[in-house]
Amino acid sequence: MNRADCVNEDSRDPLAPLRAQFALDRVDGAGIIYLDGNSLGVLPKAAIDRARDVVEDEWGVGLIRSWTAAGWIDLSQRIGDKIARLIGARSGEIIVADSTSVNLFKALSAAVALNPGRSRILSERTNFPTDVYIADTFARERGLELTLVDHSEIASHLDNRVAVLLLTQASYRTGRMYDMDSVTRSAKDAGAIMIWDLCHSAGAVPVDLHGAGADIAVGCTYKYLNGGPGSPAFIWAHPRHTEQLDRESWRPPLSGWLGHVDPFAFAPQYQPAKGIQRFICGTPPVLSMATLECGVDTVLAAGDRGGMAAIRNKSLALTDLFMRLVEERCAGHGFRIVTPREPTLRGSQVSIAHPDDGYAIMQALIAKGVIGDFRPPDILRFGFTPLYTRFVDVWDAVDRLAAVLSSGEWRDARFAVRAAVT
Amino acid sequence: MNRADCVNEDSRDPLAPLRAQFALDRVDGAGIIYLDGNSLGVLPKAAIDRARDVVEDEWGVGLIRSWTAAGWIDLSQRIGDKIARLIGARSGEIIVADSTSVNLFKALSAAVALNPGRSRILSERTNFPTDVYIADTFARERGLELTLVDHSEIASHLDNRVAVLLLTQASYRTGRMYDMDSVTRSAKDAGAIMIWDLCHSAGAVPVDLHGAGADIAVGCTYKYLNGGPGSPAFIWAHPRHTEQLDRESWRPPLSGWLGHVDPFAFAPQYQPAKGIQRFICGTPPVLSMATLECGVDTVLAAGDRGGMAAIRNKSLALTDLFMRLVEERCAGHGFRIVTPREPTLRGSQVSIAHPDDGYAIMQALIAKGVIGDFRPPDILRFGFTPLYTRFVDVWDAVDRLAAVLSSGEWRDARFAVRAAVT
Repeated sequence: MNRADCVNEDSRDPLAPLRAQFALDRVDGAGIIYLDGNSLGVLPKAAIDRARDVVEDEWGVGLIRSWTAAGWIDLSQRIGDKIARLIGARSGEIIVADSTSVNLFKALSAAVALNPGRSRILSERTNFPTDVYIADTFARERGLELTLVDHSEIASHLDNRVAVLLLTQASYRTGRMYDMDSVTRSAKDAGAIMIWDLCHSAGAVPVDLHGAGADIAVGCTYKYLNGGPGSPAFIWAHPRHTEQLDRESWRPPLSGWLGHVDPFAFAPQYQPAKGIQRFICGTPPVLSMATLECGVDTVLAAGDRGGMAAIRNKSLALTDLFMRLVEERCAGHGFRIVTPREPTLRGSQVSIAHPDDGYAIMQALIAKGVIGDFRPPDILRFGFTPLYTRFVDVWDAVDRLAAVLSSGEWRDARFAVRAAVT
Repeated sequence: MNRADCVNEDSRDPLAPLRAQFALDRVDGAGIIYLDGNSLGVLPKAAIDRARDVVEDEWGVGLIRSWTAAGWIDLSQRIGDKIARLIGARSGEIIVADSTSVNLFKALSAAVALNPGRSRILSERTNFPTDVYIADTFARERGLELTLVDHSEIASHLDNRVAVLLLTQASYRTGRMYDMDSVTRSAKDAGAIMIWDLCHSAGAVPVDLHGAGADIAVGCTYKYLNGGPGSPAFIWAHPRHTEQLDRESWRPPLSGWLGHVDPFAFAPQYQPAKGIQRFICGTPPVLSMATLECGVDTVLAAGDRGGMAAIRNKSLALTDLFMRLVEERCAGHGFRIVTPREPTLRGSQVSIAHPDDGYAIMQALIAKGVIGDFRPPDILRFGFTPLYTRFVDVWDAVDRLAAVLSSGEWRDARFAVRAAVT
């Protein structure tokens, strides 16, 4: 495989035309190769006009009338319905609201209400910190126990004490991915409620929540769904659960006014809305919701080009190529690829560990125009978004990484300074 | 007072030049008089460019680098510091995050941690529903009792069972306003923690949290702070309280990763940030934060024209004029002004009750270009934002209201249809 092969691969890629959905002219023009869509997805062109319309027309002229006239009040459900099509959920089952952290809190509250009488929340030691922090505090407040184990120890810890199994499908750190079907089945067999965090899988890999018989899921929208910085998160629960919550008139702990069955009655008594609607809490940030819808649309646009299956195929090809090229061209520099080579175990990112100098190497690479990121203590992360990442980008990124390594320019003092965010 | 007097009043208004901060050309051009800034503030012109820059440059080109390079990571504190200047708080004491509902939940959690051993949350029966709903659910989960009383009964209910007194300073329904100093003093004398909801007072009336010796406050930012639809809310706590929470390493119930003392260490153990910082939870919606900053700037711009005192003077003059004109020109149509005439008891809105036909009258008035809103069962609300509401707007609005009433056009069937949001 050489660069010409990569160019050729791009020319045959059925998803290639979808790259034109993104505002990449200035990024490309600056010689930037962006491999951080697993942290913040690229700007969809449609979001430029949409943001302008929401600001200048809907807010500026429609003003308060836009809550109904421009459909702001329906955004949470409307975007939820679109996300549903990407993750095997159905219309009316997802709402977009708040952050992943807040939605995890709602999810845990619902899960223990659905599965009372058990004492333990089980999760993975290297789960994304916010999942662990939220679960830890929740467990302390409810008198439960949070048990954190290695991914290989999950199955052996699924006993009749476990109320909830909380896992992120694809690890933010390693890119390692759980098999949703079998893990969900194990959780259910053990009588636990399974909460999936889809932050690193929604829009990146095919997810079939109904097919897996999943219980509850949350996820962010600014990574592979290209929603924009800090765009609100989503929450889904299987109808069998929301129906039970309906029967019990269960109150979510964040019982805000927009989760009321009739918010605009301004009734003195709280009465939860039916189904997933009760998980809407306060007034949503409309601008961030609007660009999010454009982001979700970029993924839905793959629908007539093979959809999530085509995205997955290309993702695996991109990550496989990246790993092969790193092994070929960056050997002898102390790297260790920590992302599984086995396709079924891999999300849409590649993580490489470097014992001491990962941070400096990533900074030097960014200075050379290849944007990935660093996660302590030793992980260089590279995300691949098939909607806009090309095979030639993979080639050029590894080419520059090899140049950084062979030149030793990462030893430059300025790259060793540790920044807050990388 | 006639229309020419109002035009004259506007010409002498020291705040009049600040109206040019707002994108009102198309609103004015369409003959719209906007009296709903108490629900959604008008678009600041600066927000148009700011939103475009954030979308096209910071997101589009800066991409993930903008978290540091464009200062996204500091928005929560930076905007909090600006809001602090408007409500008598100090730099570093406020963060902007989540919704008012979510922040109320955080505030209640902190309040009962600061004041354990008491059994009751006291609030007002007609407090904004989300305050009541959140407090009700919180009380149930913590084994506390929520006691809702009339505003006149607050003082007599402040006994040694009350852990928290939760009040909205200016009522969304009536515009009636509490005296923050005396109510806070009563609460403290009774050993209760006072939580102020400033949704209808931040940016509308002078608030001096330190002067009042207040404990905790929350508020939204899309009303008189002109932050844009659903822009995130704020939370403040007095340093004496955050210092106590620091000493106890108190964990907020929503212990998200951005409230960690060192979020980018991705540490396995949660350790709360110091001070108010611990109340940041998940990743903030950057676009909605960015326009919010422009909104807060429009209020800060009054600083060299008398600031909040000048805003208050004009607000009282506008609301007083509106009430007088309604009494003069709309007599005999069954209206009752429910907003106090006494200036110290009045926020920046006027509410008028109409026994049966309030909704239809408001719809007919909106069709005539005067935008207020309706709150069940019988309240027509009119908000006055001194930064852009003119005396002549007050005249013209009442003029059109009188025309609607005398023509009886509100009896038209289309106005009687009840919409979800008005």
